[in-house]
Amino acid sequence: MDRPTSALLTDHYELTMVASALQSGIADRRSVFEVFARRLPEGRAYGVVAGIDRVLDAVERFRFDDATVAHLVDRGVVEVGPMTDWLLAYRFTGGITGYAEGELFFPYSPVLTVEGSFAECVVLETVVLSVLNHDCAVASAAARTVDAAGGRLLIEGGSRRTDPDSAVAAARAAHVGGFDTTSNLEAGRRHGIPTGGTTAHAFVLAHATEHEAFAAQRDALGVASTYLVDTFDVFEGTRRAVAVVGPEIGGIRIDSGELLSDSRTARDLLDRLGATDCRIVVSSDLDEFRVAELEAAGAPIDGYLVGTSLVTGSGHPTAEMVYKLVSIAPDDDPGSPLRAVGKLSPGKRTVGGRKHVQRTLDPDGRYASEVLSVLPMAPSGDSMSPQVPLVQDGEIVAAVTDPGEARARCSERRSHLRPEDRTPWPATTPAIPTVWQGVEEPLSAVVVNTAGNPDTGNRDTGDRDRGGTA
Amino acid sequence: MDRPTSALLTDHYELTMVASALQSGIADRRSVFEVFARRLPEGRAYGVVAGIDRVLDAVERFRFDDATVAHLVDRGVVEVGPMTDWLLAYRFTGGITGYAEGELFFPYSPVLTVEGSFAECVVLETVVLSVLNHDCAVASAAARTVDAAGGRLLIEGGSRRTDPDSAVAAARAAHVGGFDTTSNLEAGRRHGIPTGGTTAHAFVLAHATEHEAFAAQRDALGVASTYLVDTFDVFEGTRRAVAVVGPEIGGIRIDSGELLSDSRTARDLLDRLGATDCRIVVSSDLDEFRVAELEAAGAPIDGYLVGTSLVTGSGHPTAEMVYKLVSIAPDDDPGSPLRAVGKLSPGKRTVGGRKHVQRTLDPDGRYASEVLSVLPMAPSGDSMSPQVPLVQDGEIVAAVTDPGEARARCSERRSHLRPEDRTPWPATTPAIPTVWQGVEEPLSAVVVNTAGNPDTGNRDTGDRDRGGTA
Repeated sequence: MDRPTSALLTDHYELTMVASALQSGIADRRSVFEVFARRLPEGRAYGVVAGIDRVLDAVERFRFDDATVAHLVDRGVVEVGPMTDWLLAYRFTGGITGYAEGELFFPYSPVLTVEGSFAECVVLETVVLSVLNHDCAVASAAARTVDAAGGRLLIEGGSRRTDPDSAVAAARAAHVGGFDTTSNLEAGRRHGIPTGGTTAHAFVLAHATEHEAFAAQRDALGVASTYLVDTFDVFEGTRRAVAVVGPEIGGIRIDSGELLSDSRTARDLLDRLGATDCRIVVSSDLDEFRVAELEAAGAPIDGYLVGTSLVTGSGHPTAEMVYKLVSIAPDDDPGSPLRAVGKLSPGKRTVGGRKHVQRTLDPDGRYASEVLSVLPMAPSGDSMSPQVPLVQDGEIVAAVTDPGEARARCSERRSHLRPEDRTPWPATTPAIPTVWQGVEEPLSAVVVNTAGNPDTGNRDTGDRDRGGTA
Repeated sequence: MDRPTSALLTDHYELTMVASALQSGIADRRSVFEVFARRLPEGRAYGVVAGIDRVLDAVERFRFDDATVAHLVDRGVVEVGPMTDWLLAYRFTGGITGYAEGELFFPYSPVLTVEGSFAECVVLETVVLSVLNHDCAVASAAARTVDAAGGRLLIEGGSRRTDPDSAVAAARAAHVGGFDTTSNLEAGRRHGIPTGGTTAHAFVLAHATEHEAFAAQRDALGVASTYLVDTFDVFEGTRRAVAVVGPEIGGIRIDSGELLSDSRTARDLLDRLGATDCRIVVSSDLDEFRVAELEAAGAPIDGYLVGTSLVTGSGHPTAEMVYKLVSIAPDDDPGSPLRAVGKLSPGKRTVGGRKHVQRTLDPDGRYASEVLSVLPMAPSGDSMSPQVPLVQDGEIVAAVTDPGEARARCSERRSHLRPEDRTPWPATTPAIPTVWQGVEEPLSAVVVNTAGNPDTGNRDTGDRDRGGTA
């Protein structure tokens, strides 16, 4: 079966820009675009990259077939001519470099660098940002919950609180961020994420008594499964579950009420009944802050099921990444050096030039700074480069991301942060500063494309992209 | 081409519940489930229904083929036997009643009522909630922006700030809530929503000068298109756009800065240059509150492009709907009346019994109350029933929703609200009260399934579902 095209998961203006660029002759100019977030959400010390594999998949499936082009002509989006020829011939032939899934990012980290002709790159903007803004938001929220949970089992259970397709992506991103399992079966099938779950309140209510419901679960799922005990009363429910299942009962789940006091009373009761190995799992409007409070209070909780907050980025459902042109050739001569470009729009200034990154380490092995430079930097023993090649000449060169490996990468990277940056409590600054080398900082001065522009009045710093890779 | 199954867009526990219900013999008991939100987000006066068509589509595609069942067995989710037979035979054979798209909802409004066997209904929970929680959140945020915008053109442009697939659903839901157009091309193809867009900052930056960029757009898209003027300086950009395009220029867009003062200055400039019909469209972190402020200040703005806030529900990315068992047959006798059930979990109590709804009107034609009753109510001249049949005996009986019709319905329904409930400013209560008839209010008392349960201590009010339709 042909895989469906991703090409219409795109803003209308991407196509009108291409049509205009074909008209003005700049469509084929060599260009560099970067994806980055200007800032982290308030109080956050770091972000986590996820979704790179989905981006590569979307780029590969970004094709306009006859039916799609005919639809666009019918709707008046494009006109028959050079534009429709261009669409039908489209496949991405350029290069992509980026941060691996599970890698950390900070303000202005170039999470993705896309190089190719202006037109072939600009048209990918919407779908690239859609994936990264969603997946990075969820992975970042997940890692903060891991920071809070002190190694307890973390279960993603938010599928019902987000769109069905994004639920699958959210489950994967949560796993990359450090969650152990998900409730989402499609995430299990598509991405191999471990899934889990037992019963809901409806199951208890459907039986004449809670006793009957627990007996049915025991017979079908076994004593080692987790029993939902709060449909009527947590303590009666816990007592009844042990009575029905026996002291070998695997776990109980509490989904309402005062989780701290209820988990303590339930633990006491379980221990008195001999169910000393019975796990207590809790759920109900949890987020990283509530988990941290419960851990700080020493709640006898073995696992947390987190739903709504996690899949909606815990208050920040988008990573606020943008896709910006940073360099373009001034003409069609393949020998011409690229020109660095940036915009001056208030609050939205950008820094021109393709950025190379070295993340420096201090003598204790902690991350010290994220250094961005328009010049390639030699790696050294006290730094690492988070940028890896993903696509060359239109072909994917990166291996398919194993979500488990990405999860391990995230854990390893977080170990290089200071402990105070691995809590959910509000950070006043990012964990490490973004340091600009060879370019001025974006809020004080900007490299702009005033070359040859007689009437803008914007200054040209003369800075040029010397990367030479695009 | 076969349409892909929706059956794994589901929580693991839906299947383990079915396996347990088959074990205990309750799988085939006639049941009623309801979808409702216990509350509206703080400050909201009403919610807007969207996503019903997507729910019906997901129910129709909810099938387990051999490969899917084999996968579930391999992964240990289910065991070969009665459960795998049940999965392979699954198709929904029951009935669904619900609110049409564009209809308003209030706390406890039964937006969807699903009737059938316990097992065939319970297994739909996750995918039904995923769709409705997402689409209702976006449609509700959209309608509030319409409330704020005083009839100006509203453009949805948030695709890049949400998952690619949910972006298409968000564009559709925003249109149902009242937005005029979307940037999302797939929403245009799949749902017929009008799309629009011209160029981005990258397009301006890619040219040697802003002048060249505007000329290229003029030649490709025409003078009537909208020109982005804030890449360097709004006033220079506006002046230059009129110089290049002429006073017949269709529109300018400002995407940064002080939108109130900038739109005023741009309007003055445009008028002085003779471009009196040139529209001013603004964007940049808009939400319903910012739009209302600009309108209250009399900003000379003709259109608003809203992105992030809209597609993420303006602070409430989920409508917080739940899917709850409210009635079930006590045995397999088809003549037995259904038993109303509800749970007592603190803060999450539910009211048993299938609810019928009449929305009453006051003498001025304004909505007065949302009356919920376990007894069918006769419609009268001063009330309307928002519930419509959607599925009967497993077959969809509702016509496919035309998003334009749903949008008109939403507009008509909102006209029955008081003006003070059609503003974005915080409401202290829902626009109309939810009135319970024949059942007690959910937070003061609850109908519970204590029948035959000797040891819960929960009281049985003796209330029974007399609806007789399930």
